[in-house]
Amino acid sequence: MAPVKNGRLLFNDIPSGYPEPGKTTIYDESETIDLDSVSLNGGFLVKTLVLSADPYLRARMRDPKVESFVPAFEKGQPISNFGVGVVLRSENKAIKAGDHVHGLFPFKKYITLPNLEGSRILENKERLPWSAYVGVAGMPGQTAYAAWKEYAQARKGETVFVTAASGPIGSLIVQFANADGMKVIASAGSDEKVAFVKSLGADVVFNYKKTKTADVLAKEGPINVYWDNVGGESLDAALANAAKHARFVECGYITGYNGEGTPVKNMAVVFGKEITLYGFLVFSLLPKYGEDFYREIPARVAKGELRYIEDAKKGLEWAGHAILENQQGKNHGKSVIIVAEE
Amino acid sequence: MAPVKNGRLLFNDIPSGYPEPGKTTIYDESETIDLDSVSLNGGFLVKTLVLSADPYLRARMRDPKVESFVPAFEKGQPISNFGVGVVLRSENKAIKAGDHVHGLFPFKKYITLPNLEGSRILENKERLPWSAYVGVAGMPGQTAYAAWKEYAQARKGETVFVTAASGPIGSLIVQFANADGMKVIASAGSDEKVAFVKSLGADVVFNYKKTKTADVLAKEGPINVYWDNVGGESLDAALANAAKHARFVECGYITGYNGEGTPVKNMAVVFGKEITLYGFLVFSLLPKYGEDFYREIPARVAKGELRYIEDAKKGLEWAGHAILENQQGKNHGKSVIIVAEE
Repeated sequence: MAPVKNGRLLFNDIPSGYPEPGKTTIYDESETIDLDSVSLNGGFLVKTLVLSADPYLRARMRDPKVESFVPAFEKGQPISNFGVGVVLRSENKAIKAGDHVHGLFPFKKYITLPNLEGSRILENKERLPWSAYVGVAGMPGQTAYAAWKEYAQARKGETVFVTAASGPIGSLIVQFANADGMKVIASAGSDEKVAFVKSLGADVVFNYKKTKTADVLAKEGPINVYWDNVGGESLDAALANAAKHARFVECGYITGYNGEGTPVKNMAVVFGKEITLYGFLVFSLLPKYGEDFYREIPARVAKGELRYIEDAKKGLEWAGHAILENQQGKNHGKSVIIVAEE
Repeated sequence: MAPVKNGRLLFNDIPSGYPEPGKTTIYDESETIDLDSVSLNGGFLVKTLVLSADPYLRARMRDPKVESFVPAFEKGQPISNFGVGVVLRSENKAIKAGDHVHGLFPFKKYITLPNLEGSRILENKERLPWSAYVGVAGMPGQTAYAAWKEYAQARKGETVFVTAASGPIGSLIVQFANADGMKVIASAGSDEKVAFVKSLGADVVFNYKKTKTADVLAKEGPINVYWDNVGGESLDAALANAAKHARFVECGYITGYNGEGTPVKNMAVVFGKEITLYGFLVFSLLPKYGEDFYREIPARVAKGELRYIEDAKKGLEWAGHAILENQQGKNHGKSVIIVAEE
């Protein structure tokens, strides 16, 4: 067969604020690949089906000299993130053509992988859409599942406040907290998102662009658990309205990713209220919770016990836009890029 | 015997910034007491020997409508804090004249107590000065001892940064960390304090009024443990220079007690560096560590294994000044008020 274009999303320049498609990332079709003859050197060839756009990607779009919690992207090279693909050819006995694989993939239509290190073959007995494996049944789902178990110390009758509650992590936390018998206060950035979060069973849901978080928490709190995806003003409001011995799960800080963010004024209450703030990355919790997660969550999603929504863009050429909208909070549900059908 | 004056330090008004002796607190001698005939109603009469001035007292000097971690002082009534006294008369079989008692006492020369609830009879086999029991062998010592064991997870070769390192808590932390084989970076507010902290064995000690904390930590860090007595800029510098999985022991926040304090800019690093911040009050840790503390610490102080310094004011009429200087950091060592000799 003749070589085909191997579209890629390249990291082109460090954004000063939000990442700009066509400027800070560029979709490129200059590379070609011969799917029949590309050498595999004992590895395997994958056709990318789904890629994920997640808030943390912004932290990779930086000067590599600046330290951060994730490696910087390299200019001129494809950005990378979690994805699912189908194996087209394999020279590795552990995996065969037709198998599906999840891993940290470069944003390319076709990729060759030397071995299974860092990847996982997905059985998907539950026949979930493959995109679920970068969302509710993927890294965001693992984040919610593992950290809720590790840090929240959920107690019936207590109150939790969840930010970014319509996102893939927040929407699971709302459902976990609800199942644990907690009062759930949740915020989201549009009325449409608010309606979805209400449908998940949250007790109090508000659009933080229309209603001040501090006012809602003053009325509905104090809060025993704060699930922080955003930082800044929400964190301040949570501190001001925290109960004694509150647990703050510091999961993300999107208000600080695309600029300086708002300084936090209320840290002085931490010792007096005996609050613990747990900063974490999901990778540290996977050795403890990873296998339980795959045993439990896809099945619960398939049964309809756990709900999620997705915001899918079709075509790798739209990946830069998906990333931007994810940073701006314009996505409604988990941001995914459908690169190809099977 | 004729009645004697029973001097008291009264809470007179809520300070707007620092507490002002003669204005926000007033020393008053209008009350008298007849030591021979005052009715005890089954309790006992104590002559106050020592009272303590601690940073947290500022938080009690507020409008009672404002919530905080400690009850507000009542206007017109004596302020109160930890002290040691000697029993003059007793109708309680559990305690007799000549015994020494530690408790949360009103700032008065003589007090009657209904029972031993909240007080502890001090055996003092080690014959420490009584003032030690409100410092290294009292609440500040308990704070350092219990929280170091509970939260620091000290590991040999790691680095700790201690603020207010010449104070009664900080100076113990320097010594505990040193004994645990850590590299100790410490800050204090005068060259005299710096010299004392150096003499305790800290590796790097600086005067934060002359040298920027962030610069020292950038050079000598990253830090694995941060002992926070102050908050604000020091907390920001510690966040910026924290190692992965750092433990922040949030013990106090004096930069926020007498005004708004400096907002914290670097909270966004908490999740990525997987930092845990532990807010606590010593009272929550005493059930676990209290008895070990009294078994271990006074003996180690008596042996000279643990060192401390004291800044003593003689006379209850100077208690308001001791409290002010403590808030301003002008004390050199643990602030105590010697109310009377035995």
